[in-house]
Amino acid sequence: MSVTGIRRQFPALVAAPRVVYLDSASTTQKPAAVADAVGRYLSGETANAGRGTYPWANRATRELERVRENVARFVGAGGPEEVVFTAGATASLNAVALSWGLANLRDGDEILYNPRDHASNVYPWLNLRQALRRLGTTIDLVGYRVTATGEADTADILSKVTSRTRLITTSHIHNVFGSLTTLQELRGRVGGAVLLCFDCSQSVGHVPVDVTALGADFAAFSAHKVFGAPGTGVLYCHRRVHGQLRPFLPGGGSGVTVDDGCLRAADMPYLLEGGTPNVAGILALGAAVDFIDGVGIDAIAAHDRDLTLRLVDRLRRVPGLELLPGVAAGACRVGYGIVSFRSDAVSASDLGFALSSRDFYVRTGSHCLSDHGADDGSVRVSLHVYNTADEIDRFADFLELIVKEAGWA
Amino acid sequence: MSVTGIRRQFPALVAAPRVVYLDSASTTQKPAAVADAVGRYLSGETANAGRGTYPWANRATRELERVRENVARFVGAGGPEEVVFTAGATASLNAVALSWGLANLRDGDEILYNPRDHASNVYPWLNLRQALRRLGTTIDLVGYRVTATGEADTADILSKVTSRTRLITTSHIHNVFGSLTTLQELRGRVGGAVLLCFDCSQSVGHVPVDVTALGADFAAFSAHKVFGAPGTGVLYCHRRVHGQLRPFLPGGGSGVTVDDGCLRAADMPYLLEGGTPNVAGILALGAAVDFIDGVGIDAIAAHDRDLTLRLVDRLRRVPGLELLPGVAAGACRVGYGIVSFRSDAVSASDLGFALSSRDFYVRTGSHCLSDHGADDGSVRVSLHVYNTADEIDRFADFLELIVKEAGWA
Repeated sequence: MSVTGIRRQFPALVAAPRVVYLDSASTTQKPAAVADAVGRYLSGETANAGRGTYPWANRATRELERVRENVARFVGAGGPEEVVFTAGATASLNAVALSWGLANLRDGDEILYNPRDHASNVYPWLNLRQALRRLGTTIDLVGYRVTATGEADTADILSKVTSRTRLITTSHIHNVFGSLTTLQELRGRVGGAVLLCFDCSQSVGHVPVDVTALGADFAAFSAHKVFGAPGTGVLYCHRRVHGQLRPFLPGGGSGVTVDDGCLRAADMPYLLEGGTPNVAGILALGAAVDFIDGVGIDAIAAHDRDLTLRLVDRLRRVPGLELLPGVAAGACRVGYGIVSFRSDAVSASDLGFALSSRDFYVRTGSHCLSDHGADDGSVRVSLHVYNTADEIDRFADFLELIVKEAGWA
Repeated sequence: MSVTGIRRQFPALVAAPRVVYLDSASTTQKPAAVADAVGRYLSGETANAGRGTYPWANRATRELERVRENVARFVGAGGPEEVVFTAGATASLNAVALSWGLANLRDGDEILYNPRDHASNVYPWLNLRQALRRLGTTIDLVGYRVTATGEADTADILSKVTSRTRLITTSHIHNVFGSLTTLQELRGRVGGAVLLCFDCSQSVGHVPVDVTALGADFAAFSAHKVFGAPGTGVLYCHRRVHGQLRPFLPGGGSGVTVDDGCLRAADMPYLLEGGTPNVAGILALGAAVDFIDGVGIDAIAAHDRDLTLRLVDRLRRVPGLELLPGVAAGACRVGYGIVSFRSDAVSASDLGFALSSRDFYVRTGSHCLSDHGADDGSVRVSLHVYNTADEIDRFADFLELIVKEAGWA
């Protein structure tokens, strides 16, 4: 499908043709089919799922489980029981900390993490460590480095794995550096007792994701970054870890039984799904996956790569622009839709202001990095299937102009 | 506004005039304005809130905070900083357990709760107790009784309050018994160190709710039971408890700072709001509150009361029908839209099946009660502003017919 044909499916882009939306890593625009799925649910035959027994409720339950099966297939899960619906990737990653970490970690256990990852892959662990510490249990959070190309430094990880390492967490594609981490260098070199957790928020919908091939024990993503609606996320849990999990935010409909005042784990994925599911958001995710399947994930990946490389080529030629770690630092020809930079002539917020005044919508600031330090104040460009080569060229032209004018001033 | 005029605002009811929807305690139908608010966000100018600085993002942030202010006013909060957006009432109540309980409870502390409450007001505490126990801290969950009219038995509560009691949790209106609990008999009789938590899932939108007048430290409800969309809820936290709170599911945008590897609480309500907010769901909640304001909460309460009493009067005359504890057991003329019963002639599931075949949509089973015991297998009728007296009469006529036929067989 041509990018023109794709853009036609996005009402917001059709209504505002002047806007160049380059903040898809924050949230994507939504195809009409996604809004339609939500509208159909809210305007007709609304019912709770998994509870009632009348036709509207049965239909909601059935459609929800159909989406679960489709998502399982889409990310390469072993089955629908490995796919948990949450409120978003942040909730998913906190579920790993609370439903697995709080229930399993012992004094002296270690978690390996990337301090330069998105806050949602860092704060859950800091929060857990503090909760445990108050109760007299100390866990260590061991930070590992990133490479010049923005990937998790697997040599550094390997040097830090000990017999107390229980989990290694990483982003699959980094939300600022735009680099891909698969941890494949660790295969066969760390034991099966070390669990692997991937934040796939920036990879699902951009590149083919196969959580089984990744060797993931846990994987998380948000629907709203995959053309779906906000308020819905996914937590993949490989079945080998199901026996280690405790309920997450339990309530009505949870996969638990009560036995002598104790909650006993019953069925996955319901063990981690208390309360009324976000039926509207889950149906929207189903429509989003259908949209991606319709375009083809390989075609999306190729499109995003081509535009990313086009952007990097232009940015390299802008004087005084410093590219953050990421694909631009590498020789190989990869790109996943995210490039970040700063200018020695203009602050990131001034750049953002100037760009926004000409309808180029980018993200500036610290991008939800928990470790602001060196990355504070950069501009992130994140693109997706609806962006065009012409938009990238116009963006680069204007950026070059601002930076040059600032240099002359 | 007439009930006919109100029904016209609900597309699902207009499209299916034969359906008599009597499961509003599970989820309400949605007025067109709610679906429109979601549709506008998803189809035009979609952006993340609280992050970007371009016009679409600024608008989302501004509108979200306007809804927060409106919700604060609507439930009688002291200010918007007391209103936390969550994924639903279940998440809200788990936030109390995790962000307050996990951070504050000590060995020997006691929580008073109603074992016959909705699972979402019970399981979070069972779950917390088990997590603490593994780490060597023992808390006591002390169950209190309900009265014949289905309210929390405040005499029983008073007899169980000790110097170790840290929190009393209750439903404001019970999800099966339909009875109102205000705990006003406890005023001045338990110290301020004992926090009060109300599950207002069945009261908000049904009766005027004033969390400040209730003396609540915490109060929770779900948007989808208040004419809004699923996936959004509210946790009210009185400012006097803010200093006791730790982050809830922290991630990007959380109200925290990081200091020497520790998360430090910063701003409420953001402290409890990690990750991308459910902008669509929050805008839908705003439209739902506007809808309620348009009809008038007093008018809704009067309508629901009249229909509830009409229903109770009819049910009392059906032979062999046992009404569960609730307003029907009392002499006073109150009613909040929920009545539950069982028949000695027909099982609840058979009743539900027969009723559904004639398009009467009720809920049967255990209704998310954690303590199934005596309440297993009842029929719950829950009505709201769009139900009519004629619907109640036809429901009662048909119910009477089934029960009588079963008696003759």
